[in-house]
Amino acid sequence: MSEIHNVVIIGSGPAAHTAAIYAARANLEPVLYEGFMAGGIAAGGQLTTTTEVENFPGFPDGISGPELMDKMRAQSTRFGTKIITETIAKVDFSQRPFKLWPEYKLDKDPVLAHSIIISTGATAKTLDIPGKDTYWQRGISACAVCDGALPIFRDTPLVVIGGGDSAAEEATYLTKYGSRVYVVHRRDELRASAIMAKRLVEHPKVEMVWNSVIQEVSGDDKQLRSVTVQNVKDGSSKTLEAGGLFFAIGHKPNTDPFVGQIDLDEDGYIKTVPGTTRTNIEGVFAAGDVQDKTYRQAVTAAGSGCMAALEAERWLSEEE
Amino acid sequence: MSEIHNVVIIGSGPAAHTAAIYAARANLEPVLYEGFMAGGIAAGGQLTTTTEVENFPGFPDGISGPELMDKMRAQSTRFGTKIITETIAKVDFSQRPFKLWPEYKLDKDPVLAHSIIISTGATAKTLDIPGKDTYWQRGISACAVCDGALPIFRDTPLVVIGGGDSAAEEATYLTKYGSRVYVVHRRDELRASAIMAKRLVEHPKVEMVWNSVIQEVSGDDKQLRSVTVQNVKDGSSKTLEAGGLFFAIGHKPNTDPFVGQIDLDEDGYIKTVPGTTRTNIEGVFAAGDVQDKTYRQAVTAAGSGCMAALEAERWLSEEE
Repeated sequence: MSEIHNVVIIGSGPAAHTAAIYAARANLEPVLYEGFMAGGIAAGGQLTTTTEVENFPGFPDGISGPELMDKMRAQSTRFGTKIITETIAKVDFSQRPFKLWPEYKLDKDPVLAHSIIISTGATAKTLDIPGKDTYWQRGISACAVCDGALPIFRDTPLVVIGGGDSAAEEATYLTKYGSRVYVVHRRDELRASAIMAKRLVEHPKVEMVWNSVIQEVSGDDKQLRSVTVQNVKDGSSKTLEAGGLFFAIGHKPNTDPFVGQIDLDEDGYIKTVPGTTRTNIEGVFAAGDVQDKTYRQAVTAAGSGCMAALEAERWLSEEE
Repeated sequence: MSEIHNVVIIGSGPAAHTAAIYAARANLEPVLYEGFMAGGIAAGGQLTTTTEVENFPGFPDGISGPELMDKMRAQSTRFGTKIITETIAKVDFSQRPFKLWPEYKLDKDPVLAHSIIISTGATAKTLDIPGKDTYWQRGISACAVCDGALPIFRDTPLVVIGGGDSAAEEATYLTKYGSRVYVVHRRDELRASAIMAKRLVEHPKVEMVWNSVIQEVSGDDKQLRSVTVQNVKDGSSKTLEAGGLFFAIGHKPNTDPFVGQIDLDEDGYIKTVPGTTRTNIEGVFAAGDVQDKTYRQAVTAAGSGCMAALEAERWLSEEE
């Protein structure tokens, strides 16, 4: 029989690494499955798709998302966390020890663990629009910060769909590259925070397209060339010349491997007891965006990762 | 009538400054009362009494507590937080706008605020022991890290009372200065986390005094010279030669100004709706150790400070 780990952490963002730092310092010898392009993004989670992080406390001059995650990963490693670059694809929480199977190893012996911390985060949503499949990655992206600097997006008009903080952030970021940035939003005001909304609408390169949705996209063999938007109030359409279209319309929690194994809410987020990281399965804890659709910040994820490690440690010591 | 602030933040630790960073970036123009030796400690909160912080995510090489707080304070200021070095001594939450009076200004016009974030933290507890008042600050301290390096504590045996993480941390720290460090604990095992407990008991300068309490202290005109401990199991006493005695037995939430104004629990901590920072008073939020007796970590405090700012912003926009 394989070794039974004290705690397996699934994830690679601030929640996962803060949990790992605390678990490692508590001598729990945590094993962290950071995934390989899990949820469609690199290890490090959504912060790796962000440039400047200005609001993580402790960095008065800001820090890039990837650099912050590099530091957290180094800190996990320093205290002895074992990091494995595989994606957990299947679990069995029906009995203890809990069983986990990495992708491509579903027919192998499972990884065994006395306790689990799930911090797999959430992934950007997209929409089905005529032409989307044709131009996906040929002008269409769900990550402005990952892709915005590509040559195809330089000196051409760009379109962003969405009205929240990440839409405002991504649209502002794209003004570095595009000749013009249209922000298409189905309502007549942004949901973004005041400072971000102000920064966005006042930017000379930005044009807001209110009360509108994307109707279709078209282009040539090589790239997206236009985006047709429809006004939801009067039904009128107009076609915007554009070399790029970026989705910034929200996220889906990365809980596919846990369906049927643990209680999820109606949107697929893991349910936790409020004020804790406890799930309905004793010994399984959830931290970060996979269980948070309210705050969704790096520092709130980190705080809940710490809570999960403290709760796992206490639970393990009580079970001994 | 005075200006009515959107949000007044009371406190100076990770919760207060993270709330300030988020509130300032949301254009709320927060005013932060950091206090002047509020709760008996310097602005910056309990982290200022800690040397190396190894578990705040983002600092793989560790960072000193005061340096981390300097960075957070700089970050609050960068985004426009107005910091006032006065201690809020009295509040009136019975009607809006809320009223606050700084110490020494109780007869002046109050500070007015549409919303409040309380993050005043907690303060170290001490015990009444015969001789304590005589030798307080002449050998007795409640903060090893603040005072341990003083000349009177060099090359003399030292006594630490307590069995939790901070006791383990403070006792380990004092081994730098004392010739020997006794750790007096009323039980026969530490409550400290495994890694800290192991580090402590294995230290060659440390001697554990299990199942014991402090009976009295004595000394000469200048300084504490001995500590008498009693075994709670067999009633026997012994006197330890010691030049210093450090309390590390827990904390009291800094909620005196809020008694009768807001719901507190039986230990005096502010009650919040689990999973939020909402108190029983609409528009008043609480974050950090003043409402947390479970996790009490810098990163959990920071996370809850972020939550409080987001909740205050949402509440203010709904009230407008």
